[in-house]
Amino acid sequence: MDNVTADVGDWWATSITRMAPGVIELRGHPVQDLIGSVTLAETIWLMLRGELPTPRQAALLEAALVAGVDHGPQAPSIAAARMAATCGVGLNNAVATGINLLGDSHGGAGQQCVELLTEICARWAGGAGHDSAAGGVDLDTAVAEVLAAAPRYVPGFGHRFHPVDPRRDPLLSLVDEAVRDGVVAGGHLAAARAVEDVLTRRVPMNIDGATAVIYAELGFAPPLARGLFVLSRSVGILAHAWEETRQGRRIKGPIPPSILPTYLSQ
Amino acid sequence: MDNVTADVGDWWATSITRMAPGVIELRGHPVQDLIGSVTLAETIWLMLRGELPTPRQAALLEAALVAGVDHGPQAPSIAAARMAATCGVGLNNAVATGINLLGDSHGGAGQQCVELLTEICARWAGGAGHDSAAGGVDLDTAVAEVLAAAPRYVPGFGHRFHPVDPRRDPLLSLVDEAVRDGVVAGGHLAAARAVEDVLTRRVPMNIDGATAVIYAELGFAPPLARGLFVLSRSVGILAHAWEETRQGRRIKGPIPPSILPTYLSQ
Amino acid sequence: MDNVTADVGDWWATSITRMAPGVIELRGHPVQDLIGSVTLAETIWLMLRGELPTPRQAALLEAALVAGVDHGPQAPSIAAARMAATCGVGLNNAVATGINLLGDSHGGAGQQCVELLTEICARWAGGAGHDSAAGGVDLDTAVAEVLAAAPRYVPGFGHRFHPVDPRRDPLLSLVDEAVRDGVVAGGHLAAARAVEDVLTRRVPMNIDGATAVIYAELGFAPPLARGLFVLSRSVGILAHAWEETRQGRRIKGPIPPSILPTYLSQ
Amino acid sequence: MDNVTADVGDWWATSITRMAPGVIELRGHPVQDLIGSVTLAETIWLMLRGELPTPRQAALLEAALVAGVDHGPQAPSIAAARMAATCGVGLNNAVATGINLLGDSHGGAGQQCVELLTEICARWAGGAGHDSAAGGVDLDTAVAEVLAAAPRYVPGFGHRFHPVDPRRDPLLSLVDEAVRDGVVAGGHLAAARAVEDVLTRRVPMNIDGATAVIYAELGFAPPLARGLFVLSRSVGILAHAWEETRQGRRIKGPIPPSILPTYLSQ
Repeated sequence: MDNVTADVGDWWATSITRMAPGVIELRGHPVQDLIGSVTLAETIWLMLRGELPTPRQAALLEAALVAGVDHGPQAPSIAAARMAATCGVGLNNAVATGINLLGDSHGGAGQQCVELLTEICARWAGGAGHDSAAGGVDLDTAVAEVLAAAPRYVPGFGHRFHPVDPRRDPLLSLVDEAVRDGVVAGGHLAAARAVEDVLTRRVPMNIDGATAVIYAELGFAPPLARGLFVLSRSVGILAHAWEETRQGRRIKGPIPPSILPTYLSQ
Repeated sequence: MDNVTADVGDWWATSITRMAPGVIELRGHPVQDLIGSVTLAETIWLMLRGELPTPRQAALLEAALVAGVDHGPQAPSIAAARMAATCGVGLNNAVATGINLLGDSHGGAGQQCVELLTEICARWAGGAGHDSAAGGVDLDTAVAEVLAAAPRYVPGFGHRFHPVDPRRDPLLSLVDEAVRDGVVAGGHLAAARAVEDVLTRRVPMNIDGATAVIYAELGFAPPLARGLFVLSRSVGILAHAWEETRQGRRIKGPIPPSILPTYLSQ
Repeated sequence: MDNVTADVGDWWATSITRMAPGVIELRGHPVQDLIGSVTLAETIWLMLRGELPTPRQAALLEAALVAGVDHGPQAPSIAAARMAATCGVGLNNAVATGINLLGDSHGGAGQQCVELLTEICARWAGGAGHDSAAGGVDLDTAVAEVLAAAPRYVPGFGHRFHPVDPRRDPLLSLVDEAVRDGVVAGGHLAAARAVEDVLTRRVPMNIDGATAVIYAELGFAPPLARGLFVLSRSVGILAHAWEETRQGRRIKGPIPPSILPTYLSQ
Repeated sequence: MDNVTADVGDWWATSITRMAPGVIELRGHPVQDLIGSVTLAETIWLMLRGELPTPRQAALLEAALVAGVDHGPQAPSIAAARMAATCGVGLNNAVATGINLLGDSHGGAGQQCVELLTEICARWAGGAGHDSAAGGVDLDTAVAEVLAAAPRYVPGFGHRFHPVDPRRDPLLSLVDEAVRDGVVAGGHLAAARAVEDVLTRRVPMNIDGATAVIYAELGFAPPLARGLFVLSRSVGILAHAWEETRQGRRIKGPIPPSILPTYLSQ
């Protein structure tokens, strides 16, 4: 499609950055005021939301970002980045390759889980975002209604490899503390636990679900659940691409079992 | 090239991640011990280096990562990501597009600057990494020798837009403090300032140079200067792609001046 | 999302390629029988469809592929590839960058138009794919029904830049000939012209519409309309990335008008 | 690196495309004159070289493009594209992922082989591109000199999987015919055979070598050997990504043997 839309005057307009010779402002903060004063996680929040988070909000975001950095080389994003690193491209191209795979299925589960939790809270009379004038149902009913319309794989729940995802408990504990101290409201957490109860531990919450609770409680728009996962997983992608680079293998990937004997006999 | 190399048995081997059902270990640390305990910047260090940094090392790394997050939409990486966001691809694909542009020229200047500073220190009798048995020259001579072989654009120095890069001073101040307190040795910092003196302020150190000093002082391999810049700039790329996504423009990019009147007259 | 699905035994299975030492078969054809005997367009058909096309089918496909190769540097895909070429990445990375932008809006219009035409034909009593037992409406009614549900921008029709897309007429003439000679059935062509009539020339068929007619008449699945556009536009992307590479510009893109004076005054 | 170079006035200038409302010219040819008249291979030549090829030149190019379309799913580029297709990204993003892996090692061998053959011809008194005033050596000497400086893996020769690459003979036969009929000069072909003789059949010419002979004889610049391989291999990448898409697997890639039993026992 070759159409180019017409309102062209302000293509370069942005509310994120202000540039002038000798001046770089990020969301209104001179960059020199940020350097050495705020953390990377706080900067991520600032850039995406327009203002700095409180320390407790930043701590929750940081925990979610740390939790998602890596899931080993059999994750397609990591495997593809490692393969790219053997093909003679720049380290940035290897990282871009991995990130390019964090699509609707691989990186989008968190986004879909935020949408699911938000929908439950909107129907639930006690949920965040619920319009009290609109009536509303109790939590169990809201969960049942939303799950009835959900796809076969409920995003954020279940894992073929881990019986229980080791990242679930520490993340939810942090949200519990944040609810107790009034940092976040807790509606999305309650919704997520109610979904897990319905699915009766056959499919406990996974990393996408647990981080979706955090992103939703912190008020991030659903697509940013994917965006934040991209930033998080980039760390693992870079680490694996770099490990592969240092090994110096060339044009290398997993070998099909049917071909393996051919190689081993050479 | 269709060659696939032969040592196939251990393609999946990694020293970064250990996975088993219910177990995720990153560099030997169970992931549940990291969540809520370490920062994202500390996790980046852990994943790339194999062990956790000291708090002072982490603070220096964090400052460098914060400094590089964005340089506005006229940077090709940001512009390409914004354009991608108007074309109907996932947010991860838009971020990958931006990162794909951080090549030898755009993202590689930091890497090249680390190599330059490391080479100066190796020749300099007082420099880090210098083999004292090998003799060695004084700093000015080492700088002159290395600059004589450098390309026309010395990586890490000079900026067409900023007379002085506003990120230079706060970053170098942090390194000064770290040298004073024995956190880092200071050889690469001295080398960078000596280069800047030779270039006589016509081309002061830029963001690539100032962050290269930090990455070199902290002991990162040169290619990781690019890798870390990728992680840093990903934040700005995501923020800009997201801003563009929310505007809902379709298939949109900068318009050539010669075509602009055609659009405006419609 | 870290799930990896379970049916793993046959990940490498494919009906496209058979490999053995000294043997490469593509869709059952030894590669040495194809080299020098078939055209690139015929090979594209073979790889996607499993068998070779007739010469007339191949000619229609070839015309559609030729028509889409380029639309100049203001197309975001071309602009991004040119920008990538200035950033010090490989020519393949520059091409990949451009292709990465051919998303739902930029490259997906052809796919959506094939779906639209197919839907019209399914409702239309005389259309291809219509189940005659199911009753069915006349063409005008089918068009009205489908357009009523279509988005604001009907994919494949209209162009902000071209009053009439110069690629429309020669492509449709080729389809007319193919219908006359019984090469294709002509239902999708009739549907496309009926849509154009309803839109009353305010928004004539564009390149996505005209090529969608060809791909639909030839029996390609809708997603392959995008896939074939990718192969076609890759030619222009490569040519523009290569032109940019030869100019040797560094980290270069369009400049915002507000910043331009700063550059010109230096 | 945030520098943006200064000569900004003509960023949009190109000698490839001329656009005006209702006008699309490719290398001076109105697009409507090309549609239905020239092949895709001829259009590729036109876009990259600026003029149309002779029929015999086009046939040689077409044979090389057909020969490289695929090498099965164990090629990292194909595997990565198939993995991407399971992750919920667009078909264009899956193709871009595969192309992103055709780097210096995977896709650059052809480029390096063209450079090698060109260097041999420049030293050889009878070679194409040789400056007769400069003296020059015989072919065997030129080959020996150039191979002495070549890397351990001579690009374009040898294959771990195929004892003899089945694509070698038919491609070289076509070049022999083209030399006999005066279509191309034959110097690069002679140089390639001389290299193969020195390597004494232990490592016969592979697809990169055989296509490099064709691209060099036809006068393409070395980087375009990679560029043309990108266009060729895109066909296989698309076919494999599409096959994977139709299977509907989610987040799927090769499974490490050590983890396989875990899956099979579930």
